[in-house]
Amino acid sequence: MASKTPEPRVCSIARSLEVVGEKWALLAVREIFLGNRRFDEIVRRTGAPRDTMAARLRTLTEAGVLGRRQYSEHPARYEYVLSTAGRDLYPVITALREWGDRYLSGEQGPPVTFTHSCGHTLSTRLVCEACGEAATYASATRADPEGEGLRGR
Amino acid sequence: MASKTPEPRVCSIARSLEVVGEKWALLAVREIFLGNRRFDEIVRRTGAPRDTMAARLRTLTEAGVLGRRQYSEHPARYEYVLSTAGRDLYPVITALREWGDRYLSGEQGPPVTFTHSCGHTLSTRLVCEACGEAATYASATRADPEGEGLRGR
Repeated sequence: MASKTPEPRVCSIARSLEVVGEKWALLAVREIFLGNRRFDEIVRRTGAPRDTMAARLRTLTEAGVLGRRQYSEHPARYEYVLSTAGRDLYPVITALREWGDRYLSGEQGPPVTFTHSCGHTLSTRLVCEACGEAATYASATRADPEGEGLRGR
Repeated sequence: MASKTPEPRVCSIARSLEVVGEKWALLAVREIFLGNRRFDEIVRRTGAPRDTMAARLRTLTEAGVLGRRQYSEHPARYEYVLSTAGRDLYPVITALREWGDRYLSGEQGPPVTFTHSCGHTLSTRLVCEACGEAATYASATRADPEGEGLRGR
């Protein structure tokens, strides 16, 4: 029988969730992607409590996901901009959006759609950088010595 | 000046985060992807408090992300399996893992790597289903009447 000692896995997913694994943090990132960079607008369009959002923005800034840019001197006011690390959250945000579009839209359909630069409505697929074929649960095997495949079924 | 009335955006990202937007929920999904389907193992490998994890598994089951399968009659014991909706979280989990690999790994490098069926170490890219080109922040424009592009800068 397996030991019951806690052995939390060392894992990039867990580490990422320490930074962005909270609803208001990711919704703040969404707003900044949408061009709303100022605190009041971010609060208004997410519906977050002001104190909570202030704390999340501080965490994201300290983690290097956001930068601050002063847009007014008197009074001193700042807006938030995405760093490279912040912009690299685009696949996370997009994957969450598409999952919600698919499973949580109901009869009215997706609330927002996007057009890709090719002219088609944006629907995305995750592919392997090396071969261009779909990257799926079934096509990925864990490669490290612990040897429990992601297909460990 | 913009009105300060709260107007939380109707949004698939927000809806998705109501279901999976909490650290322990996504780490439970990770464990089940890794083949650990039983409560005690999920608790052990995530490090979650037992009560919290029990609540998250209940929410995920009610939302249709997980199903339960009985594996013992006396005592009655269940394991958790991913539904189609649960398996479709693969891009979310993978995008979070790769972001953490890139920005939170430090000198030791990614804690876990995967091999794609083509034989290469898995590194993924999000592409447009229609044209196969990269789907990025810069290549997506909001298509709905509100007309605030995702490139609303």
